[in-house]
Amino acid sequence: MSSGNDGSEKKKNKKKETKLGMTYKKDASFGDWYSEAVVHGEMIEYYGVSGCYILMPSAMRVWNVLKDFFDSDMKKLKVNPYYFPLFVTESALQKEKDHIEGFAPEVAWVTKSGQSDLESPIAIRPTSETIMYPYFSKWIRSYRDLPFRCYQWCNVVRWEFSDPTPFIRSREFLWQEGHSAFATKEEADEEVLQVLELYRRIYEEFLAVPVIKGRKSEMEKFAGGLYTTSVEAFIPNTGRGIQAATSHCLGQKFADMFGIKFEDDKGSRSNVWQNSWGYSTRSIGVMVMTHGDDKGLVLPPRVAPLQVIVIPVSYSKDADMASIKGACESTVCTLSQSGIRAELDDRTNHSPGWKYSHWEMKGVPLRIEIGPKDVANKQVRIVRRDNGAKVDVPLTNLVDEVTVLLDGIQENLFRTATERREACIQVIHTWDEFIAALNNKRLILAPWCDEEKVEKDVKVRTRGEGELGAAKTLCTPFDQPEFPQGTMCFASGKPAKTWSFWGRSY
Amino acid sequence: MSSGNDGSEKKKNKKKETKLGMTYKKDASFGDWYSEAVVHGEMIEYYGVSGCYILMPSAMRVWNVLKDFFDSDMKKLKVNPYYFPLFVTESALQKEKDHIEGFAPEVAWVTKSGQSDLESPIAIRPTSETIMYPYFSKWIRSYRDLPFRCYQWCNVVRWEFSDPTPFIRSREFLWQEGHSAFATKEEADEEVLQVLELYRRIYEEFLAVPVIKGRKSEMEKFAGGLYTTSVEAFIPNTGRGIQAATSHCLGQKFADMFGIKFEDDKGSRSNVWQNSWGYSTRSIGVMVMTHGDDKGLVLPPRVAPLQVIVIPVSYSKDADMASIKGACESTVCTLSQSGIRAELDDRTNHSPGWKYSHWEMKGVPLRIEIGPKDVANKQVRIVRRDNGAKVDVPLTNLVDEVTVLLDGIQENLFRTATERREACIQVIHTWDEFIAALNNKRLILAPWCDEEKVEKDVKVRTRGEGELGAAKTLCTPFDQPEFPQGTMCFASGKPAKTWSFWGRSY
Repeated sequence: MSSGNDGSEKKKNKKKETKLGMTYKKDASFGDWYSEAVVHGEMIEYYGVSGCYILMPSAMRVWNVLKDFFDSDMKKLKVNPYYFPLFVTESALQKEKDHIEGFAPEVAWVTKSGQSDLESPIAIRPTSETIMYPYFSKWIRSYRDLPFRCYQWCNVVRWEFSDPTPFIRSREFLWQEGHSAFATKEEADEEVLQVLELYRRIYEEFLAVPVIKGRKSEMEKFAGGLYTTSVEAFIPNTGRGIQAATSHCLGQKFADMFGIKFEDDKGSRSNVWQNSWGYSTRSIGVMVMTHGDDKGLVLPPRVAPLQVIVIPVSYSKDADMASIKGACESTVCTLSQSGIRAELDDRTNHSPGWKYSHWEMKGVPLRIEIGPKDVANKQVRIVRRDNGAKVDVPLTNLVDEVTVLLDGIQENLFRTATERREACIQVIHTWDEFIAALNNKRLILAPWCDEEKVEKDVKVRTRGEGELGAAKTLCTPFDQPEFPQGTMCFASGKPAKTWSFWGRSY
Repeated sequence: MSSGNDGSEKKKNKKKETKLGMTYKKDASFGDWYSEAVVHGEMIEYYGVSGCYILMPSAMRVWNVLKDFFDSDMKKLKVNPYYFPLFVTESALQKEKDHIEGFAPEVAWVTKSGQSDLESPIAIRPTSETIMYPYFSKWIRSYRDLPFRCYQWCNVVRWEFSDPTPFIRSREFLWQEGHSAFATKEEADEEVLQVLELYRRIYEEFLAVPVIKGRKSEMEKFAGGLYTTSVEAFIPNTGRGIQAATSHCLGQKFADMFGIKFEDDKGSRSNVWQNSWGYSTRSIGVMVMTHGDDKGLVLPPRVAPLQVIVIPVSYSKDADMASIKGACESTVCTLSQSGIRAELDDRTNHSPGWKYSHWEMKGVPLRIEIGPKDVANKQVRIVRRDNGAKVDVPLTNLVDEVTVLLDGIQENLFRTATERREACIQVIHTWDEFIAALNNKRLILAPWCDEEKVEKDVKVRTRGEGELGAAKTLCTPFDQPEFPQGTMCFASGKPAKTWSFWGRSY
């Protein structure tokens, strides 16, 4: 490889890369960077109806990995697959008052078919409690029908008006929703946490995103439910928390409204205890925000549709392209046979440099470069997407080394994301500290009196702080720090009851 | 087992079975029988919005088997998974004239969100050509981008007004839709048939339903397309054909309207050639109609969620229930370990007879009964759902025998369904023969001049025949019988060009 050739190759690449690459920096312009990352990384295409997006193969393949994991756990937990209709009548939707109040402003209504007006408008599901529960009351009669557990994969529609963002806040999204009924509160409580643990695993073990398990405040809980637990992620760049998945105990309110009663073994009838829980394609957005960098997406190997891209490299016209291509093909073949998702980019109309940028934008965890020197030395060069580290690996070690590297990337992404989040956590005790931390984009852990009117008050008082919106509780973490006697609420000055996370949120 | 006990057990069962079982006969009252079969078989629950149905776990599990098969073939054919939005703007929907004319009367329109009117109404997809193709024109630029192949699993809405029927004709249904673009008509033609073959396999190899491959007439083809191929099933009980899945060549009309052009290697630009193809949850309904009997559903083993139900049977109070239950559990365990989907029904609040009826209604292919005699003889009694045949099988042979029986049922269902359909086919040559065959609920194979106005004319002339509606072409089968010189069209008297299938249809 002559330095002359090398130089001109670099120049050529640079020109093309400029055209191809990312134009925004994650730290400087996070919102623009995010849009560019999901579009250039080919996960999202913007669509002609505001707040709706096209999910591209990269996104769907990540989603399908999560789906397969979740389906197999549903089977273990004996939760049955159903599909309930997209449409719900006005009267069913309005049956539980608090619930409809929570969702009413976002409900999309079908009023016409063809040229004809419908007799009465029909709503598109924003969630399926009111669609399912009239039937639960029919199906559940005796204690023998309990526990009753069902789930579905579907699209839901919430006609949001604030700032649509791909994956994070869209008018239509894909999700899994589960609904169950039990004879006792204890069983319901237990399942809430079982499912929350699955959500934690989806985020931490698959998407490599650290989350905090906790309970939502009264203000932030699910409309109509008894209490809501969630896993909460945090985006350091914007200083915003994000509700990553929720598992609600609905108590007996829906059962009461929809008449879901069971007869126990002594013949007396009671309301069932219900849960509902879900996670959505929002998870993909959280993953992108957490790991992406100035070159584009960075995908954790466990969910990456493509784990290894193999690129032939020649630095002179004299290079034996046939033997290089042969080496590339056999590399892909060897990796594929070991269950590693690998592909060859042998396009002749793009330079290696262009391809490097392209696959970096798409977030492929490992790049393998094979040039004449590599063929001669029976090795390949492997480049990590997460930290750019390069290593030459002999072919005899290929599968082992790639496996170790992929595991290492998965682990590294989770560890560094956890460290970044930890660095954002700030424990505060006073209002002044709170405001300072908020303006410093911290994830704030504060002692709180746990009163609804105090949270409302904090919202009002922080509305004017910068242009970033008001603060609220993110969750009261299950994992509570020690609580010295006499600790006071940062906002009300009353005795504190919990440590809770506060901040701005998506 | 004393005959006295046996007798009283039988009487008791009979009483309960009457209460539990099917009330309609398939031959006497097909429509009512079908509704009862899908509801009592726990595939469908009727829903409060007309034409929408709840798909129960049995239906979803069948659907998921088909999905897994299809996904793996999509991977082999390199068709990529996408998810396009549920919503489409009026202007995009109306871009291809023939297309919108075909779908307009059935389109559901969203006009409100919360209390606010939308600026302009937004349609819910009846199919996704007009949603996808504006983006195809963006993504496809060069011959290097071809072939372009994508598919999605989703719900679609067609606000039908005629006679809703679970699975067969519903306002919302689940389907797979695929869309592809090619440089040449030859490639498009080839893929149309590749996918049609997958649909044939889904019906014949999984659902055990015989189908006819062929081409739709000009009148019956996809609105806006060039030509439509389909697999057609036939329901002998109603004498109706049913379009089971379609694979369309769209030609270049959509490409022209949506500007989907590619530059070839010489730099000249042309419209792409497009296909679209889909099959839906209708397939489950066709399966039920084909195999069900007076006892309820009959599920082909390859798609049956549960292949074997094990039921403990005791004929006296003295029976050693513990050893019977132990034998049942170990039977389920042995079968499960061999990948056979088996479960135990050990409920104590139902008699064996009640359970027999229950699982027969649900269509489980094999029932295993284990009583004291079976435990003593180290055997089980196996009863086939399809023909009621009983056989005692030594435990040592269990897995082999069950496997052979399941394969035998799959084969038997397909064979008998094929025979029943063959017996319905009637070849006719004259109008009088045609009318007689139509009134006799035949699947009519007739020589035809292949002129649109003749098909229209046949529709008009048969509208008055009975109360069953007009006749139309089902398809022109690829497999054409011999064509003696001078064969005339049964309807117009002109020289015939094809043999086509005619009849009433769903």
